[in-house]
Amino acid sequence: MDDPMLKPPAERLYLEDLRVGQRFTSAPHLVTAEEIKRFAAEYDPQPFHLSEEGAEGTLFGSLAASGWHTAALTMRMLVESVPLADGLIGAELQLGWPKPTRPGMQLQVFSEIVAIKPSRSKPNMAIVALRNETRDQDGEAVQIFEVKMPVFKRPEA
Amino acid sequence: MDDPMLKPPAERLYLEDLRVGQRFTSAPHLVTAEEIKRFAAEYDPQPFHLSEEGAEGTLFGSLAASGWHTAALTMRMLVESVPLADGLIGAELQLGWPKPTRPGMQLQVFSEIVAIKPSRSKPNMAIVALRNETRDQDGEAVQIFEVKMPVFKRPEA
Repeated sequence: MDDPMLKPPAERLYLEDLRVGQRFTSAPHLVTAEEIKRFAAEYDPQPFHLSEEGAEGTLFGSLAASGWHTAALTMRMLVESVPLADGLIGAELQLGWPKPTRPGMQLQVFSEIVAIKPSRSKPNMAIVALRNETRDQDGEAVQIFEVKMPVFKRPEA
Repeated sequence: MDDPMLKPPAERLYLEDLRVGQRFTSAPHLVTAEEIKRFAAEYDPQPFHLSEEGAEGTLFGSLAASGWHTAALTMRMLVESVPLADGLIGAELQLGWPKPTRPGMQLQVFSEIVAIKPSRSKPNMAIVALRNETRDQDGEAVQIFEVKMPVFKRPEA
């Protein structure tokens, strides 16, 4: 990879390195009004995500990030904090946004492995369930999701 | 709204205008390799989303969009195709990505109202469940999700 944004993680985890109850914590990310509006303009152009004025009188009351923006920011933090050697590849998930992400919030993702289910057909693989809570600076959740991912054993030398 | 991207929809739907079984279809969106890489660089910087070369030898085999990119593109299409007067505001959802989004795919979202549950505490509101299938040009699904949204009655004059 020649992308300068891609720092190879210090450790690369395989299935053998994982256990139920294992936790990961991301670095924090400070959310700005500018990035909320920019994401919204491209992917979720609704008044309450696009401008302070547009949010007045809506269910949100003031500028709020698209839930998909919260999800995308969460993914960015996960890529940096959960160093699975073969990558984070989700197939299905359940997701909730208990409250909106607002400008000025400092978000951080707290993850925990909640299940590891060995594959019946592929002996080198398991489906790992990871529960991820994205919290603001007060510890309140803006997003909770649980994703099932295929994770592989360390390749034989 | 003074954002030129925001075309006010031709119709604005309130709770009275909705019924179970009602369907919506979005305009198509052609996915490019450039936008896949750009989204990935910002929100999901994993090798198989960042470049053709990085995808070789991974589970994806060739360049694939981040699932969150598929979700964001789907949201953009939904905003244009499901004209709820008070907006599309999701609180919780279940989501699956049956297969990855690839460069050159033409995506389109097919939505259907699957449940309308009147609120007990708020007589002017119901929780509407919308099932959304994002399909490629061959009609195969790249994303299926069902979301629960608050929808309000037409305000009294």
